[in-house]
Amino acid sequence: MKMAEKKTEKKLGGAGLRGQVAGQTALSTVGQAGHGLTYRGFDIETLAEKACFEEVAYLLLRGHLPNRTQLSSYRTRLKGMRKLPEALKTVLEQIPAESHPMDVMRTGCSMLGNLETEQSFDEQDERIDRMLALLPSIICYWYRFSHDGIRIDPAASSADSIAGHFLTLLHDKAPSALFERVLDASLILYAEHEFNASTFTARVCASTLSDIHSCVTGAIGTLRGPLHGGANEAAMELIESFQTPDQAEEGLMQMLARKDKIMGFGHAVYSDCDPRNAIIKRWSEKLAKDAGDERLYDISVRCEEVMWREKKLFCNADFFHASAYHFMGIPTKLFTPIFVMSRVSGWTAHVKEQRANNRIIRPSADYTGPESAEWVDLDNR
Amino acid sequence: MKMAEKKTEKKLGGAGLRGQVAGQTALSTVGQAGHGLTYRGFDIETLAEKACFEEVAYLLLRGHLPNRTQLSSYRTRLKGMRKLPEALKTVLEQIPAESHPMDVMRTGCSMLGNLETEQSFDEQDERIDRMLALLPSIICYWYRFSHDGIRIDPAASSADSIAGHFLTLLHDKAPSALFERVLDASLILYAEHEFNASTFTARVCASTLSDIHSCVTGAIGTLRGPLHGGANEAAMELIESFQTPDQAEEGLMQMLARKDKIMGFGHAVYSDCDPRNAIIKRWSEKLAKDAGDERLYDISVRCEEVMWREKKLFCNADFFHASAYHFMGIPTKLFTPIFVMSRVSGWTAHVKEQRANNRIIRPSADYTGPESAEWVDLDNR
Repeated sequence: MKMAEKKTEKKLGGAGLRGQVAGQTALSTVGQAGHGLTYRGFDIETLAEKACFEEVAYLLLRGHLPNRTQLSSYRTRLKGMRKLPEALKTVLEQIPAESHPMDVMRTGCSMLGNLETEQSFDEQDERIDRMLALLPSIICYWYRFSHDGIRIDPAASSADSIAGHFLTLLHDKAPSALFERVLDASLILYAEHEFNASTFTARVCASTLSDIHSCVTGAIGTLRGPLHGGANEAAMELIESFQTPDQAEEGLMQMLARKDKIMGFGHAVYSDCDPRNAIIKRWSEKLAKDAGDERLYDISVRCEEVMWREKKLFCNADFFHASAYHFMGIPTKLFTPIFVMSRVSGWTAHVKEQRANNRIIRPSADYTGPESAEWVDLDNR
Repeated sequence: MKMAEKKTEKKLGGAGLRGQVAGQTALSTVGQAGHGLTYRGFDIETLAEKACFEEVAYLLLRGHLPNRTQLSSYRTRLKGMRKLPEALKTVLEQIPAESHPMDVMRTGCSMLGNLETEQSFDEQDERIDRMLALLPSIICYWYRFSHDGIRIDPAASSADSIAGHFLTLLHDKAPSALFERVLDASLILYAEHEFNASTFTARVCASTLSDIHSCVTGAIGTLRGPLHGGANEAAMELIESFQTPDQAEEGLMQMLARKDKIMGFGHAVYSDCDPRNAIIKRWSEKLAKDAGDERLYDISVRCEEVMWREKKLFCNADFFHASAYHFMGIPTKLFTPIFVMSRVSGWTAHVKEQRANNRIIRPSADYTGPESAEWVDLDNR
């Protein structure tokens, strides 16, 4: 074999396509100087304070804010789409309790595609809304069946919001107004984030003109990776491992000295702060007071101080989500599935955008293998 | 709202990342001048003539050709991995007969990930081999159950090769030596093709350090799109619609005049011929003679002549695959699932390569939306 020496010496400009423009979007800006994060031009602070998640999903998917009538009918529509098909329930019942919840989401979404296939792109809004409405039912049905042995009826929940619906199914009772409000804000914060890896997967899939369930299934699988969606779970494990803020400081200093990977800090795109952090941090503080348990919140704050002081690393959206979700009684293993329930709005808005102006995404590769290899018959190897 | 005018005027260099290097690979060269197509340096003509599919999968996945002992034990290993878990059978039985077979493959692969989760990358070869062995069982179990009402036992097939195994499950009898040989060659032709859209999806997913089943599930969903994997099915519909070569010529001329999209011709990367075409064309001719039916083959040849004469468009790998598969009694709807049974070797070899030198794939986007938008309360919209 001859090696392609000239080629192997060539250095790639941007590994991971970092900084390379892979397409156009009108959906969000991430980390543009002075702008923080906007969805269709609206600042994330404003949206998280004044909108509800269904309103934000409508904005992303329909291109404008709904008026009162439109929002009301959209929420009613989503509420009417929560019923799980029997075949999907049977599938979810086959999945063991010890499975990875993101595998459950991926499989549930894929199975739905068999039962309610998108036959033409005219049906895209119908299929998208159904996924928005059904993903909380999918994860909760599996979770309650496999962990509690209970077959819940997702259509029986009377909650008006997706946030309230999820908490009702999970805890078998209506959530407090505070819990519903915080989870709603959290869904807004996670809804959309430009060409992150899972969204990019959805767009590559969409570019072959594949169906909407394939796009979302692929995106779920990509979000599952620990470098992407798993950071809030990892942050929870970190803060849970400490008993006091002083212990946290000591532990972090040791981890930094060992150069351990610490999740929930810094970001591939933001350079000095993640605009979502301040919002979820305020909610986490409020939940801590509400719960009368300030241990986890105080530990989280100390972690933030230490990481900034030592490394000039800021908390990203995931870090204070960990304590916030925990205060609401959400099991750690369901943190990333909540991310799916939210981000499905952004993924599908990107699929619509890709379809509207499509060219198949088919990059080139830098070949580093042997230029030619000579065949040797089996007996002479 | 103010529009970002300067930005919307900016034209992208390469839509669909065409011609942009998105990473490195040592697995294959596609369309390099004078080289046609090679897998790890071996020319596709040589591989399709002298190797078997399991040997090619071994080459892609382990990095070198196996010797006789290695090949024999690899085939025995794959043969021993064909048994479907009961929970997976139950899932496949929930999928209606009218579902899209690629949705079945995607769901079967995703469900397998729940039952045999890749817990660490040390397990990747084990999980990959299992998928290679099991994907034919998945599609045939569903197909025979939903279409014929029969619960087959995939582990009972005594065929040594994946090609023979698939044909045995599909037709409930051992295939002729010719059929097994042709399907084996076909699996070799489809095994690997650099950074095509489905492979690129697998690499984006792998770059978040997600699991192998997520990577393959996402790739299946991407291959499902008619711009990618569906071309041989579309070619079948085309040639079946003609009764004679003259009719085919007349029909094609009309389609060209109407500027209809004609599948199975041309290629995003090859400029003057697809090196896989000559190989499958020879096999299609042989199968036509064997079947005593030269209508579809002659029609295919006339289509090739007309498209070259009129448009200088050459047949790609998909076009003569249509007639070849048809002569072997394979239902058209299973053409793309066979592509999956083959390409899973290339996808997973790319995942291994991505993992060995990883950076998360997170490109940028060119923002074309409003620069800022002012919030209006619900009652004033």
